[in-house]
Amino acid sequence: MEHSFTRVEGGICAPLGFSAAGVHCGIRHNHTKPDLALIKADVRCAGAACYTTNKVYGAPITVDREHLADGYAQAILVNSGNANTCAPGGVELARETCRLAARALGIDEKDVLPASTGVIGQAMSIAPFVAGIPAAAEKLAHSPEGNLNAAFAIMTTDTYPKHIAVEFTLGGKTCRMGAIAKGSGMIHPNMATMLLFITTDAAARPDVLQQALSSVVPATFNQISVDGDTSTNDTVMLLASGLAGNDPVQPGTPDYDTFVAALTQVAEHLCRELAGDGEGATKLLECTVSGAPDVPTARAVSKSVIHSSLFKAAMFGEDANWGRVLCAIGYTPGDFSIEHTSVRLQSVAGEVLVCENAAHHPFSEEEAARILKEKEIRILVDLGCGDASAKAWGCDLTYDYVKINGDYRT
Amino acid sequence: MEHSFTRVEGGICAPLGFSAAGVHCGIRHNHTKPDLALIKADVRCAGAACYTTNKVYGAPITVDREHLADGYAQAILVNSGNANTCAPGGVELARETCRLAARALGIDEKDVLPASTGVIGQAMSIAPFVAGIPAAAEKLAHSPEGNLNAAFAIMTTDTYPKHIAVEFTLGGKTCRMGAIAKGSGMIHPNMATMLLFITTDAAARPDVLQQALSSVVPATFNQISVDGDTSTNDTVMLLASGLAGNDPVQPGTPDYDTFVAALTQVAEHLCRELAGDGEGATKLLECTVSGAPDVPTARAVSKSVIHSSLFKAAMFGEDANWGRVLCAIGYTPGDFSIEHTSVRLQSVAGEVLVCENAAHHPFSEEEAARILKEKEIRILVDLGCGDASAKAWGCDLTYDYVKINGDYRT
Repeated sequence: MEHSFTRVEGGICAPLGFSAAGVHCGIRHNHTKPDLALIKADVRCAGAACYTTNKVYGAPITVDREHLADGYAQAILVNSGNANTCAPGGVELARETCRLAARALGIDEKDVLPASTGVIGQAMSIAPFVAGIPAAAEKLAHSPEGNLNAAFAIMTTDTYPKHIAVEFTLGGKTCRMGAIAKGSGMIHPNMATMLLFITTDAAARPDVLQQALSSVVPATFNQISVDGDTSTNDTVMLLASGLAGNDPVQPGTPDYDTFVAALTQVAEHLCRELAGDGEGATKLLECTVSGAPDVPTARAVSKSVIHSSLFKAAMFGEDANWGRVLCAIGYTPGDFSIEHTSVRLQSVAGEVLVCENAAHHPFSEEEAARILKEKEIRILVDLGCGDASAKAWGCDLTYDYVKINGDYRT
Repeated sequence: MEHSFTRVEGGICAPLGFSAAGVHCGIRHNHTKPDLALIKADVRCAGAACYTTNKVYGAPITVDREHLADGYAQAILVNSGNANTCAPGGVELARETCRLAARALGIDEKDVLPASTGVIGQAMSIAPFVAGIPAAAEKLAHSPEGNLNAAFAIMTTDTYPKHIAVEFTLGGKTCRMGAIAKGSGMIHPNMATMLLFITTDAAARPDVLQQALSSVVPATFNQISVDGDTSTNDTVMLLASGLAGNDPVQPGTPDYDTFVAALTQVAEHLCRELAGDGEGATKLLECTVSGAPDVPTARAVSKSVIHSSLFKAAMFGEDANWGRVLCAIGYTPGDFSIEHTSVRLQSVAGEVLVCENAAHHPFSEEEAARILKEKEIRILVDLGCGDASAKAWGCDLTYDYVKINGDYRT
């Protein structure tokens, strides 16, 4: 089933009933970078979320699990600059930020979902929130500007704000879905320091939202790798206001498929943006594996390829060193045959077959160099031993990655 | 059981009955770097080996498995510059090099073990071997010089030749064990492009040698990571000439324990050398995990830490960003508790406790900076939930790693 939905402006503020804002409240010392985002729904929303699988996880996640236990929420409060993880009193502080937000917005504190990103292990002060939350509440706007301000405020080392919105139809009603996201280091399996906030005005019960989200995450956000480090604070949240007026989406119906397809389109778009804007990245790498015996193998192989430091460095050097692709395929766990494997490198400049039946296929180094000069490189792997396929997204490994992470705290 | 054996000179030529040589035969274009090593035993040796677990593996490994099937061998032939992997006709070429070596040495071709390291996927020519093998055979020397020439010839991006020899006693007889090794990229689990050749004049049956080697590899060579890429050509070989005249080593005896301890000392020394000379490395990282519920968990956690790109980059920047250590511990698969985890950073300049009970422990940034200025950094993790421990070795992530791997083929 192929769907392609109309893109619309406004990100998380495109669906009916959502306003957003971003302010600088002082968690970061850099005054030119906002560090607090607030997303508010006009009505209580059905909600769903997925979190990091790291055994070390941020204090806000503890609070989110409690606050979303009933399936509903009305606001999301996000700070950058401090992850509120492994820090003393973190959970109590996260609760206190919810109380402050609830007071400023006139809603229940149990309907506020907190999220944090930044340095791990440093105590966070409540002071910036005391002034910052009312300021953000004051600034809330149902507009593309509100969306952009929030998208900007959640950024850490991202180089630009990431957002998208699409329009689709459920039961004759026009619905919208919007999202903002931030990367860009510690990105690996299970959603690394990705924060993703998705809004929709489609109506769906919390359990249906969770089912849809949980079905999309493994094929999308879990297939990104920037550096192999699974963050402690990964969070994707989905709030549905229901203001589009459709009959609530039910699993097993064409409407459900449409909703999942919209969610997938939004997710894939953000995967490409997050990977392409990985720390220090100059290139987006998209690896498509086909001909795999099953989907888990296809996913694992594609992720091995875009996770290989050696291959990532070769892509930075625009070097068609396909042996490193084959090496990464070969060390992927699982029982599959590699003897029929072919590898193609592709970009807008063309396509070149570099490996056939797991061995060197003659190709023009000049042509390969022309293809690899582009910003988006697709690696097409056909394992030739089945029908399953999957994609994964990554980026090249560059001097700037080392620079950014060599002294992140100062 | 703590053993410490006397170090002696001569590497693989220290044990009785081994000669070695290294020459430039033309596989590499750079004439100042030898590219062919030959190791010969005066007598047929009991042999054992472990190979990469990559599903894509070098042609020489196919031949090694055949030639070592009977448990005996007399020579090892190693080339650098081309991995003879995913290259057409590779297995036949590897066999042909064995025939050439057998002819030059006057031994059976089935007693020659080939090994290759270098670029994957490029066809290798027999021509350099035709002239190179007799030249190497001519140069064979039972001397420290022969050892050094061989150690130098197997290097790829290593910055210096790696070798060691120790002396120990079995049943009243003085025995020696020597080894040479090369790294230094594609080093991760399961012995990445490590080539290690170990000789000993101790007597032991092939099955006992294999048992000893297989017991030491998981705790040593498999605990190194430079970049997370498991090579296609990893090989460790152990040849025992028996010329020391001891009664053959039997499992379950004090002599066996002594032999395994000597092998472990040799292996740990080379682990430190290989990791510290990882591509682009400026620092050796050694992570010791104690207080783990079991050995597999201790091994996995220590390897997670020294494998984290973020932590490796922080070490390059001499930044005590312990949150990244905790993050890496947390994403290690397995069912263990992190709440009692403590982390210390240690070097010859001192030791600092940076994390206690999985949370920030106040420390002097100045003191930490002084500790992290050193070339060898130890990360001491205590999980506080058991008695098992393990070590892993890695290196920092630097600009030079990116540079070396951005354009390796040219």
